[in-house]
Amino acid sequence: MARVIVDVMLKPEILDPQGQAIAGALPRLGFSGVSAVRQGKRFELELDGPADEAALSDVRKMAETLLANTVIEDFSIKVEE
Amino acid sequence: MARVIVDVMLKPEILDPQGQAIAGALPRLGFSGVSAVRQGKRFELELDGPADEAALSDVRKMAETLLANTVIEDFSIKVEE
Repeated sequence: MARVIVDVMLKPEILDPQGQAIAGALPRLGFSGVSAVRQGKRFELELDGPADEAALSDVRKMAETLLANTVIEDFSIKVEE
Repeated sequence: MARVIVDVMLKPEILDPQGQAIAGALPRLGFSGVSAVRQGKRFELELDGPADEAALSDVRKMAETLLANTVIEDFSIKVEE
């Protein structure tokens, strides 16, 4: 059994109002030193088998069809040790 | 300038209906081999300065007060190279 992480973030050219709201709230809460925030999604997938090439190819298809909207979002896949 | 990642996930004992919905949708879309999915949030913070100990301590406070609800969520902080 392996765990695979899929991180989904808005593409850099897409406006991220959630992240901007957080960046705007930080100074009001007394935090300085953060110039920008972007918010995305993180998915943890528990695989039945090992995270071999076939399984990761499947995860890539899942990310493309279900987890990310590839018109506005980028995703990255990594295997958690 | 450094980039710090804050990952926020529901605690393991908290029910995750979003993740369950994804896990339930995968077989209908023709994907097998995934036994569980959990969905969380990922924040990318751009720091003005370096990610030294003081900055990371600030990020920890931000995560505790603003980014995560520590009653039901765990967070982890890592510096992106």
